[in-house]
Amino acid sequence: MLYIVGLGLGDEKDVTIKGLEAIRRCDKVYMEAYTSLLSFGLSSHGLSNLEKLYGKPITVADREMVEEKADGILAEARSGDVAFLVVGDPFGATTHTDLVVRAKTLGIDVKVVHNASVMNAVGVCGLQLYRYGETVSLPFFTETWKPDSFYEKIQKNRMLGLHTLCLLDIRVKEPSLESLCRGKKVYEPPRYMTINTAVEQLLEVESLQGQDVYNEDTHCVGLARLGSEDQMIVAGSMRQLRTVDFGAPLHCLVIVGSMHPLEEEMLEFYKLGKTSEA
Amino acid sequence: MLYIVGLGLGDEKDVTIKGLEAIRRCDKVYMEAYTSLLSFGLSSHGLSNLEKLYGKPITVADREMVEEKADGILAEARSGDVAFLVVGDPFGATTHTDLVVRAKTLGIDVKVVHNASVMNAVGVCGLQLYRYGETVSLPFFTETWKPDSFYEKIQKNRMLGLHTLCLLDIRVKEPSLESLCRGKKVYEPPRYMTINTAVEQLLEVESLQGQDVYNEDTHCVGLARLGSEDQMIVAGSMRQLRTVDFGAPLHCLVIVGSMHPLEEEMLEFYKLGKTSEA
Repeated sequence: MLYIVGLGLGDEKDVTIKGLEAIRRCDKVYMEAYTSLLSFGLSSHGLSNLEKLYGKPITVADREMVEEKADGILAEARSGDVAFLVVGDPFGATTHTDLVVRAKTLGIDVKVVHNASVMNAVGVCGLQLYRYGETVSLPFFTETWKPDSFYEKIQKNRMLGLHTLCLLDIRVKEPSLESLCRGKKVYEPPRYMTINTAVEQLLEVESLQGQDVYNEDTHCVGLARLGSEDQMIVAGSMRQLRTVDFGAPLHCLVIVGSMHPLEEEMLEFYKLGKTSEA
Repeated sequence: MLYIVGLGLGDEKDVTIKGLEAIRRCDKVYMEAYTSLLSFGLSSHGLSNLEKLYGKPITVADREMVEEKADGILAEARSGDVAFLVVGDPFGATTHTDLVVRAKTLGIDVKVVHNASVMNAVGVCGLQLYRYGETVSLPFFTETWKPDSFYEKIQKNRMLGLHTLCLLDIRVKEPSLESLCRGKKVYEPPRYMTINTAVEQLLEVESLQGQDVYNEDTHCVGLARLGSEDQMIVAGSMRQLRTVDFGAPLHCLVIVGSMHPLEEEMLEFYKLGKTSEA
């Protein structure tokens, strides 16, 4: 049996009882380290908290490992019980769908244990989840590479009066360009896009495209460390959020569409200068 | 302190450890019974499982109670610790936002414990969450009342190639029309819309509106009891899903937009005649 267990967003105690029981039942426990990492995955300290709670050693599986050793992991799941731990909910990212497809193709039973993900926990800011349009991803720009397919999607959402959840780029264990040229892999330090960078890139694309999709006065909500004890939520214009210090990752951003009165009332609590706890 | 604790989708073991610790810390525990009810909330048997796990009595709070007695609940939260339990994630429904706004206005601390909701758990069928457009709600039609605002929203989603999550009507503790006329409240038995009814109503609106938004051949995914041990997922055309017996509530429906190859591969496992477990 392959258990795909969502760990939620905050710390080791966000696992569900069902998830914990599944993990404790397993012979082998892997934890994904390639689509998102959070407080408890960022340090060896965090990992040991997990291992203590689970009473099991955890093998951290980065993207390379999952791609290269998927056959081995699946073979283990055929003969015994294997848990694959995922930050958030198991189906937040494509990579897990791929693992599930491979397992099912081999006739291996798959059991999913759901949990909160940014896709639903973002509801905490008061903007109703059913009023969101397509979610977009903002990649890190470089001098020569500024992909902007999100711009048209945001435009369509805004034309419909819908909110847009922007997921911000995470670069973990990226081989450095230099090391690739030399044929020996050396990894860049991990990078997490801040809300500040996201707003700057959004405004840069607006100034290049000039379709008036949004501007410095457009209402947004910045959310940092969503679901953690020290989460931070600030509502304000792009101009305002550009300079707010949101602290440690992970960050995400919502571009606000048209609002119902109750949504407005709730956002009031997160306006700059007010308390930002939920 | 007011704790709003998401219980997840399946049974009592879908609570997180953080949620369980919060509940056990509270002097009073309420459970919402008005926006959605699931297996563990449907019977007194289910409720006693929860009470056994939590080691506390639970007061089931229906819509009337929360609206009428909110002041009392909030007064308790001002002087002690109160937990308000919500099926799924706390911010799946507007009513909880309302309670949070009232608490914050009174200066009462609010802590949210997130969990899975249908809005993210629907990812289990393989359709990527970021490829969904606006979520729609399908209300029960009557002979004389057939609200169809969802039709235009589905049209817009489909024009953008996006999937549409359809949430199906739940009628719990609705006063009967007859009893309202007599001035004494008698409640209708609870009603949960099935996927079959949803498809019929969708096709009825299409035939009335005639904008060619979808038809009997349109690909859909029906999901019943999402997140439970006995969840059922079937992919097929509207014509096919119209006659599938999905069993007990809750049901929801996805109208499929344009698909990536990995999404197609995953849906294959849920086609009629294949296994429907996840």
